[in-house]
Amino acid sequence: MPYIPLSEKLPGITGLLDYRKDTALPIRQLTQILLRGESTLTEGERELIAAVVSQEDECRFCTSAHSAIANILVDEEGIAEKVRSDIDTAPVSNKLKALLKIAQATVRNGRQVTEEMVAEARAEGATDRELHDTVLIAALFSLYNHYVDGLASVTPTDPAFYDRLGKILKDKGYLPSENRYAGL
Amino acid sequence: MPYIPLSEKLPGITGLLDYRKDTALPIRQLTQILLRGESTLTEGERELIAAVVSQEDECRFCTSAHSAIANILVDEEGIAEKVRSDIDTAPVSNKLKALLKIAQATVRNGRQVTEEMVAEARAEGATDRELHDTVLIAALFSLYNHYVDGLASVTPTDPAFYDRLGKILKDKGYLPSENRYAGL
Repeated sequence: MPYIPLSEKLPGITGLLDYRKDTALPIRQLTQILLRGESTLTEGERELIAAVVSQEDECRFCTSAHSAIANILVDEEGIAEKVRSDIDTAPVSNKLKALLKIAQATVRNGRQVTEEMVAEARAEGATDRELHDTVLIAALFSLYNHYVDGLASVTPTDPAFYDRLGKILKDKGYLPSENRYAGL
Repeated sequence: MPYIPLSEKLPGITGLLDYRKDTALPIRQLTQILLRGESTLTEGERELIAAVVSQEDECRFCTSAHSAIANILVDEEGIAEKVRSDIDTAPVSNKLKALLKIAQATVRNGRQVTEEMVAEARAEGATDRELHDTVLIAALFSLYNHYVDGLASVTPTDPAFYDRLGKILKDKGYLPSENRYAGL
């Protein structure tokens, strides 16, 4: 049971974004810019960062949701689970591996990001902007993870729910839209 | 030294918000709504939540900045330091004490917010909206703290810097403005 009254039809973050729409709007806009805007990181890579970071925070809703989206976007069966299980052996670029480790450290505590981690990412070709965006995506998912779990929003256990949500987020992105969650 | 090139004149979050203005805008807007918008919590109470949460994350820049603002807004000498030192004995309402503990738990990990904490806040008169906003302010400062420290932005050590920044934020709020940091 959530700690405040939320629509039963809207589990996880969806009910919270519906509860207070004025605060939801800039959260949605920031997410759209970071995860779907112009970037040298693919949308799939950015969703993998979100999934790994959410797992680090043990936020089951966000981990499942962004794993589902990453699996839709990346042409590699079960990529999210592979990356979440072991970054080092996952079939992603060395640059992304280094960025994923920076993202993980960021959500544990920003001060855990070390010069060595940054140097390793740069050696694999990471740019200033990619470093910035990786840290900010991780920081944004700190917000999401703590928001979702701090108010005890409902976490569906049926994997099919996240497949449906992932498809909605892939097709519609993160900005508000009419009948956004129809069929969820 | 920050991990990416930031203006030397803009330490802490200020340089990061200047680095990528398109992502900065929704972050600023969310902060303005939550910390300065209509609320049954005073601006001073909301800044105290930000200060306590930032201390929990050990983000020195954000702790110092929001302590300075709280001390300007609340008519009680050194209120931020008193609350940060011991919530239970600080000269604030029992409702705020209960909310501050929820905020602290939220940034540690959202799942640390318990039904008992929520029941205690409700017994002291906290509303659904106050519970929601407390958790979302804490979640927003998870973003700020991890963003600021994850990129190793500069943390000034001179307390006078934070007094100047606090005055700017009190007078101008959080939205973008011309010559925002003149005199910082």
